[in-house]
Amino acid sequence: MKRAQRACVITQILTENPNKDFPLGYFAEKFGCAKSSISEDLQIVREAAESTGLGYVETTSGARGGVRYVPYISAELAAPQLIKFSQELADPDRVLGSGFIYTTDLMSDPAFVTLAGRIFARHFAATDADMVVTVETKGIGVAMETARLLDMPLVVIRREAKVSEGSTISINYFSGSADRIQKMSLSKRAVKPGSKAIIIDDFMRGGGSVKGMEDMLREFDAKTAGVGVVIVAGHGEVKKIGSYFPIFHYDDTGSVCKVTANPDLLK
Amino acid sequence: MKRAQRACVITQILTENPNKDFPLGYFAEKFGCAKSSISEDLQIVREAAESTGLGYVETTSGARGGVRYVPYISAELAAPQLIKFSQELADPDRVLGSGFIYTTDLMSDPAFVTLAGRIFARHFAATDADMVVTVETKGIGVAMETARLLDMPLVVIRREAKVSEGSTISINYFSGSADRIQKMSLSKRAVKPGSKAIIIDDFMRGGGSVKGMEDMLREFDAKTAGVGVVIVAGHGEVKKIGSYFPIFHYDDTGSVCKVTANPDLLK
Repeated sequence: MKRAQRACVITQILTENPNKDFPLGYFAEKFGCAKSSISEDLQIVREAAESTGLGYVETTSGARGGVRYVPYISAELAAPQLIKFSQELADPDRVLGSGFIYTTDLMSDPAFVTLAGRIFARHFAATDADMVVTVETKGIGVAMETARLLDMPLVVIRREAKVSEGSTISINYFSGSADRIQKMSLSKRAVKPGSKAIIIDDFMRGGGSVKGMEDMLREFDAKTAGVGVVIVAGHGEVKKIGSYFPIFHYDDTGSVCKVTANPDLLK
Repeated sequence: MKRAQRACVITQILTENPNKDFPLGYFAEKFGCAKSSISEDLQIVREAAESTGLGYVETTSGARGGVRYVPYISAELAAPQLIKFSQELADPDRVLGSGFIYTTDLMSDPAFVTLAGRIFARHFAATDADMVVTVETKGIGVAMETARLLDMPLVVIRREAKVSEGSTISINYFSGSADRIQKMSLSKRAVKPGSKAIIIDDFMRGGGSVKGMEDMLREFDAKTAGVGVVIVAGHGEVKKIGSYFPIFHYDDTGSVCKVTANPDLLK
């Protein structure tokens, strides 16, 4: 196989296995050539990846040196999509009343899920988290894509305990937007003590359900390493939780609802 | 940019955008070179992809000619993973009684979800479906990955009508495994009449919930283009539905439970 073809094969394998480490020896054996040749191939792969805005190639040197593909999205690629989706989300047809908007289609749309997943994966790549956590149902698509891109397991908290979850731990929490006590439930097997989680949720108003997830993690002696929320209503108001990273801000205080992308993502 | 680097950039962009059409002019403009050069680059990309077992590059010729990446998984790559996961699923610690096994961790594990999603995407690539449908909760990860790889929207049917879904259509169905009437509910906005759906579910025993999804689609004047199930219990027994495509067979009729991969996937 010639150099250009080898470089394409390496690009494809790395891109299909985000955030997974490959020792140079893996490719050397695959192509039956020296590690020094692979290093030269990787130079091409790395420079190519730098130009796409979709991900970069990280290498570690030394005898146990390896390579990984870190998915990314440049502001230049993200901005036009963020603006387009902001406009879609602000469509008056989506307003359901009582502060709710219809987002179910977007939360399962591959283009939207890929964008949100890449933004979260990029934002949380440097944390020491070892899992992604969400509560059913609408945020599962984005949380799963974030977990896939970070190569971490996803843990889905249920609303009700299910027989297929085995023994569970349940907590009650106060949801400001539903103005009532709600319940969440998680299998005892789902989380190891000492784990660190990135919490992902699709929509936040008061922060009750994210706080519920933080409380749930504490029951497992696990920690919150970061919180990502796709759409935050009333950004700037006091929330039940500390810091969080939003993709969209939703403002329905005026006569028409306004949706804007997190300005940090546009520059 | 040199040919090898261009080929890597094309490989990365195609791999990151599964089943999406790119006209040759997109790359010609990006690199500022002739379409004939891009065609030569694509020859390298195509040959490289053929050797990985992870996907192939399809080109259509003519003035409006374009290119797309079709994710795939060769039996050679899939078989060892299918055997490993069969063994994991058969672990006696997973048995919960009443015919249930604990699969929640695997259904949200990126390696498992990627494998199952690729197998379904490969199996259903040739159907004329335009969406993927599942019912909450555990199958959402695999269904989302299948939808992402096929570049189709995912529609998630809920168990209960939610305010954030707007007006919904609900149906009742009989679940053999839970031995009771269950309900599912879907937003009226979610499905266009005339759509064709690939139904994905994580576990099937009698086929009640898949049949419920088929009935639900009929309420929307939509059709079922195929059914994919991750784990089927009692394969070969009469089900409430017609044909389906399973990845794993689960047999708990003996004293120990046995899990085997669909033999068609191992050759």
